[in-house]
Amino acid sequence: MPDRAVDRHSAEQLDRDDPIAQVRERFALPDKVIYLDGNSLGALPTAVPAAVADAVTRQWGTDLIRSWNDNGWWTLPGRVGDRIGAVVGAAPGQVMCGDSTSVQLFQALVALARLNPQRRTIVTDGSGFPTDQYIAESVARMLDLRLLRIRPDAVDTVLGEDTAIVALGAVDYRTGELWDAPGLTRQIHDAGALALWDLAHSAGVAPFDLDAIGADAAVGCSYKYLNGGPGAPAWIYLPHRHQADADLPLTGWHAHRTPFDLDDSFTPAEGIERARIGTPNLLSMLALDSALDVFDDLPMADVRAKSLAMTQLVIDYVDANLPDVEVVTPREPARRGGQVSLRHPAAYAIVQALIARGVIGDFRAPDLVRLGFAPLYLRFVDVYDALEGLRDVIATRAYDDPAFTRRNTVT
Amino acid sequence: MPDRAVDRHSAEQLDRDDPIAQVRERFALPDKVIYLDGNSLGALPTAVPAAVADAVTRQWGTDLIRSWNDNGWWTLPGRVGDRIGAVVGAAPGQVMCGDSTSVQLFQALVALARLNPQRRTIVTDGSGFPTDQYIAESVARMLDLRLLRIRPDAVDTVLGEDTAIVALGAVDYRTGELWDAPGLTRQIHDAGALALWDLAHSAGVAPFDLDAIGADAAVGCSYKYLNGGPGAPAWIYLPHRHQADADLPLTGWHAHRTPFDLDDSFTPAEGIERARIGTPNLLSMLALDSALDVFDDLPMADVRAKSLAMTQLVIDYVDANLPDVEVVTPREPARRGGQVSLRHPAAYAIVQALIARGVIGDFRAPDLVRLGFAPLYLRFVDVYDALEGLRDVIATRAYDDPAFTRRNTVT
Repeated sequence: MPDRAVDRHSAEQLDRDDPIAQVRERFALPDKVIYLDGNSLGALPTAVPAAVADAVTRQWGTDLIRSWNDNGWWTLPGRVGDRIGAVVGAAPGQVMCGDSTSVQLFQALVALARLNPQRRTIVTDGSGFPTDQYIAESVARMLDLRLLRIRPDAVDTVLGEDTAIVALGAVDYRTGELWDAPGLTRQIHDAGALALWDLAHSAGVAPFDLDAIGADAAVGCSYKYLNGGPGAPAWIYLPHRHQADADLPLTGWHAHRTPFDLDDSFTPAEGIERARIGTPNLLSMLALDSALDVFDDLPMADVRAKSLAMTQLVIDYVDANLPDVEVVTPREPARRGGQVSLRHPAAYAIVQALIARGVIGDFRAPDLVRLGFAPLYLRFVDVYDALEGLRDVIATRAYDDPAFTRRNTVT
Repeated sequence: MPDRAVDRHSAEQLDRDDPIAQVRERFALPDKVIYLDGNSLGALPTAVPAAVADAVTRQWGTDLIRSWNDNGWWTLPGRVGDRIGAVVGAAPGQVMCGDSTSVQLFQALVALARLNPQRRTIVTDGSGFPTDQYIAESVARMLDLRLLRIRPDAVDTVLGEDTAIVALGAVDYRTGELWDAPGLTRQIHDAGALALWDLAHSAGVAPFDLDAIGADAAVGCSYKYLNGGPGAPAWIYLPHRHQADADLPLTGWHAHRTPFDLDDSFTPAEGIERARIGTPNLLSMLALDSALDVFDDLPMADVRAKSLAMTQLVIDYVDANLPDVEVVTPREPARRGGQVSLRHPAAYAIVQALIARGVIGDFRAPDLVRLGFAPLYLRFVDVYDALEGLRDVIATRAYDDPAFTRRNTVT
């Protein structure tokens, strides 16, 4: 047997040795499902239903408008921001929660462009998530800047005296590749540009230390590995050193220095409060606040170690058992995020066939089976059983069933 | 006795004659509170807690990512938009729900400016809600336009060949004055400009017919008279005639023509779908969807009639009993929204003293007591009892208590 023997017994042993195995009990998971789509929508923490019921019935229903003071609604976006900051390496007072990643990208790109006004080029990842590219297009147009697209590992080939901002995702959403954020940020800074990181696919699963690497801004969602719920509010990071000069375009009244004076002209608040916009979606944000309890006493090093062990198990299994499947995700652990992407011509139908067996992953055009491994609530045996399902689907050509080849899903 | 006798018996009679009195049963109202702040945060419809619990436990917890299809999450923003449209006079396919009013104002202002590019001036209400002015400032700056501020009833004095957009609130948030939207829209169009209406303070209480008046765009929140919950998602109206040319700046991937092709460049969706942005805050939006059930079989003419009768009761009471209080809201019914604003030098402390007695209204600097009358869940006797409380607070100078003069609230 090779060193990395892949069988169910070894998966069971990995579960017995897992120091964060009991974190799974903090989640309500559906029966008869192996959920490998936590990279799209994280599972439900068990504490959330009661927290949301309290938000609806007591805070809204009974306390009503008084909740802005009495239940801390006004300070919630900053408090949730700090809690997210603790997961992504940001000291307090630098992360604000709210709105969607698209909106926060717009905010961050405009603010950084205004911090570096002599330079007229935005660089972004040409295979990055669509919203990141679309918002960069829009900002470039509004501010009359040039937009260049490049793979993150080729950024050095385009950095120049005109580069204002380089905006990159921490993890390639298709391949699962984790980029070298510290090294890239250094390169970007050496060229006199500012670095914006989108942590949608890394926050909560892969290590990131925004303060330590000197990121100039960051954004992310909270509904993937942070398990904040469907469409949970996004967040923006602006480090202390840029806050006084951060000139954000979405000047909603919550961002005003003295919002309750109801002035006619905008003066930004001091600190990260200027990254507020309008009234936040409080029910969604209170759900997220409760969901973040899961991370309170959780060493991120343990999360990362389990994540890497899981994705390694997948790679080893595929190598040993699925010769027709290509592992697209890097084999080098330091270059892996929380997912493994597998290439197969029948990827779409394979994903559908797996879903019919209770193994939920997702498909990315044209030919990727994308499997996310949320180490907080998945067991190694779940991963093993899912892989056995995948082997069976391929071995039996279950994916040829017309029920699985017909495209009728939206996600 | 004068025609409009104000006593508790007549209030009771008004309740007995109220054709929509039973709608109150669709709300969960706190004990020992008369809630006159539905113009800030509407009360909780009784159906919402179960709907939200289902959203959290079943849709998120059990169905997980499958809910995008199986529970209709993908189509929810447009469906909720249509339901809001039904309340504000918009035929289906012209309203999209999502984000905050501030974000939607930014979208609408930029889109309208791009529809009228030869003209370089935005006009907005100089005493309008702060966010409306702040976002107009930001858009004017980004697009290099001029910003003029004027009272809505003096718009004719500034309309000219350079006016691109006139952006107004339907109701003055301080005084409660309902502007003549049909007449103003005609004036604006006659001058070759485009009309943007903010319905935050009118949707659900005062009549508005976006299609009939020919509004070029509109926005609004849904947490006031629409009772959608704290920070419930906002909405944007773009009429069919402008949709093909509406060029919106927040180009999130949900607005793409073929979002699941994950193209690298943005092509807007057809129709109102292009007014989507990123992933919406679904828990908040599902709460709003449930809350809107209240309006399903409710004639808006009855809502308006009750609203006017209530605000008339307030004006008559103040005239008869409170000589030191000035009614700031217009006495002419056609010029009243859903609130009455009363001027008194001790307004702040009066509001606090009323809250201590269970009568919840709010304060607007420097000297306004702002009372909102939500006709769906208030009784005329509630209004009468609140006014009796106000009379007592003023008669006894209860507002001199230092507990009430100390400013410690955020809203």
